Amino acid sequence: MMTPRNGGGVSAAEQIVSLPGHCVHLGTHHPLILDCGAALSAFPVAYQTYGTLNAARSNAILICHALTGDQFVAETHPVTGKPGWWANMVGPGLPLDTDRYCILCINVLGGCMGSAGPDSVNPDTGEPWGLSFPVITIADMVRAQAMVLDHLGIDRLFAVIGGSMGGMQVLEWASLYPHRVFAAVPIAATAQHSAQNIAFHEVGRQAIMADPDWCGGDYWRYGKNPHRGLAVARMAAHITYLSEHKLTEKFGRRLQGRAEVTYGFDADFQVESYLRHQGISFVERFDANSYLYITRAMDYFDMAARHNGVLANAFRDTRVRFCVISFTSDWLYPTAESRRIVKALNAVAADVSFAEISSNNGHDAFLLDEPEFRRVLSGFLDGAAAHRGLPPAKHGT
Amino acid sequence: MMTPRNGGGVSAAEQIVSLPGHCVHLGTHHPLILDCGAALSAFPVAYQTYGTLNAARSNAILICHALTGDQFVAETHPVTGKPGWWANMVGPGLPLDTDRYCILCINVLGGCMGSAGPDSVNPDTGEPWGLSFPVITIADMVRAQAMVLDHLGIDRLFAVIGGSMGGMQVLEWASLYPHRVFAAVPIAATAQHSAQNIAFHEVGRQAIMADPDWCGGDYWRYGKNPHRGLAVARMAAHITYLSEHKLTEKFGRRLQGRAEVTYGFDADFQVESYLRHQGISFVERFDANSYLYITRAMDYFDMAARHNGVLANAFRDTRVRFCVISFTSDWLYPTAESRRIVKALNAVAADVSFAEISSNNGHDAFLLDEPEFRRVLSGFLDGAAAHRGLPPAKHGT
Repeated sequence: MMTPRNGGGVSAAEQIVSLPGHCVHLGTHHPLILDCGAALSAFPVAYQTYGTLNAARSNAILICHALTGDQFVAETHPVTGKPGWWANMVGPGLPLDTDRYCILCINVLGGCMGSAGPDSVNPDTGEPWGLSFPVITIADMVRAQAMVLDHLGIDRLFAVIGGSMGGMQVLEWASLYPHRVFAAVPIAATAQHSAQNIAFHEVGRQAIMADPDWCGGDYWRYGKNPHRGLAVARMAAHITYLSEHKLTEKFGRRLQGRAEVTYGFDADFQVESYLRHQGISFVERFDANSYLYITRAMDYFDMAARHNGVLANAFRDTRVRFCVISFTSDWLYPTAESRRIVKALNAVAADVSFAEISSNNGHDAFLLDEPEFRRVLSGFLDGAAAHRGLPPAKHGT
Repeated sequence: MMTPRNGGGVSAAEQIVSLPGHCVHLGTHHPLILDCGAALSAFPVAYQTYGTLNAARSNAILICHALTGDQFVAETHPVTGKPGWWANMVGPGLPLDTDRYCILCINVLGGCMGSAGPDSVNPDTGEPWGLSFPVITIADMVRAQAMVLDHLGIDRLFAVIGGSMGGMQVLEWASLYPHRVFAAVPIAATAQHSAQNIAFHEVGRQAIMADPDWCGGDYWRYGKNPHRGLAVARMAAHITYLSEHKLTEKFGRRLQGRAEVTYGFDADFQVESYLRHQGISFVERFDANSYLYITRAMDYFDMAARHNGVLANAFRDTRVRFCVISFTSDWLYPTAESRRIVKALNAVAADVSFAEISSNNGHDAFLLDEPEFRRVLSGFLDGAAAHRGLPPAKHGT
């Protein structure tokens, strides 16, 4: 599909790993200097592609995934066997139309699906990094993604799109590499992690670190896995991804396979059973240390702070076209956070449209079938594609 | 202060325990039949009193405490050394005026401050109950409290007041014993635990049960304590007691004793440090199994379900005077829940007043110094006292 091309100072050596898709080793000649000051050399980055890059290399859309997402956007997941996390949005004739666009998704730095992270091997020791892996930031994730684009010979993205932590990366892309982004769509995102956001993440981290099987982060050394702590972390987080309305509608106080409560601590209620399942299924596909690193990167995210406390400064003179999207029932990154981004963009006279989608699905609405959301995203991309000189859709979307 | 009097079939044998205050053994002759069907015999109930019962025994106010509260309402706590949890409300000249009223607070059944619960001794075995303690309900807690009143010779309470789980008990008091309650004040409460409420409790229980030191509930047998799991449970719950606004105002993204983030997993942020402290200090005073039992009682709480799905049926023909109070920023038991109670009370033409207090302090507002809340509570109690024929306050409140 794409012909890898050597970017400046970036190794193009592509390594076959056990996961399907692509994996490239970057930073061999010029290491990636992280925000913490550490240098990352010869580190793997895994990515997946859908659709075909045009001759002008002008139709690439980068999807940035969320905390527990990965690069398997629109295909059966190699670990869980479930459909890709955005299979309803990415494909022929879908809003992210693979007949028109070349869709790219990169496992974030710190992740556990092939990219460098605490569970990957430190080339200097031949052992997993564990907690010796440097703490990374959202900007570091984006810099590593830019190195992948160098490797692929994509100078400029048609669009960068993502929800939740993906939206943070979108904002960082537009700020760090405005000349490499034509359009940017931060969805259900924030420019600054709030105290409550940090608090929920800290609960999750404490749950993991409280699990004796975490072994100070060295569980791989002892053949252990802090799956109980990680499951609790996931359960707590999962509540924040939904809305009270959604939980009431989906479960209410309905019992799980019983007519009466049992006066015990089994999962009497459907919502308990559901949450336990969320916890258990998560630990099968996610690394506990990765969870620590990625939540930390989100906690550290504060774009205004890096620009003298003025968010607008992050986007000064930008020519990127923005479409900011939020959901009414999202209480993790509520609409007020998106409005703050829009206000900052307006302050620098950016080209920005803003849509608050009415939905009861909470933060996770961006993953679900939300007709209004699809219309807004398709409409914005169609308009942007016309401006970019890309051909229209083959079929109506 | 009070002269214990034998109630019908209730032992008045009062036992000195290591905790200050009162402890009575109840159910010796007539056991308490619990909702789960089990019978509880010769079980201890600990309580505390402030103020003097008048000759007519008509000025008693029962305060029902919340999930992690206890009977030490208005004095230095014997374990933590901190002021009583409602010291700002209970005392001479305060809204719950100990110059006028005899204030009583009883450690709930299932609790761990002297009343029967999983950490108390099963008289049949001479060992702690652990998980063999029967699962109790809010109604069971109230029935045990009624037995204490029998023991004390108090036929009718002037008022029963409580916030959060205390408010659930207030509603249950008014429903089970309408003839024993003159006035009822449920604060920041609900008549039915929601799916989201259950979900947060389940996270806490899973955190406790995931701790290997929980030992299937038998930690006392092995000299262990699941303090890490309990701390995580407390941290998760504590977030729900505050509001996003409050967390932002109190902590924002301010760092804890450092000028820059450390790129590590220490408590860089004040909110992390605060939450960790909440977790650590909680385990010093609370029993993990008690946490399981009490959260379960709250999850099971659904007054309408016990009355053919119609909440109003719980209060039919009631003559109790109600004052329902909620707080604008409470997202654990939001105002909508209080409105549902008020609507049910209106449907049976009950005497009910309702106040939604404007506050940024979230659910915990009922514990804090909220001037409007104080005024509403004082005003309601003054009016009710006049109707009850109690003398007015000695000094203006």
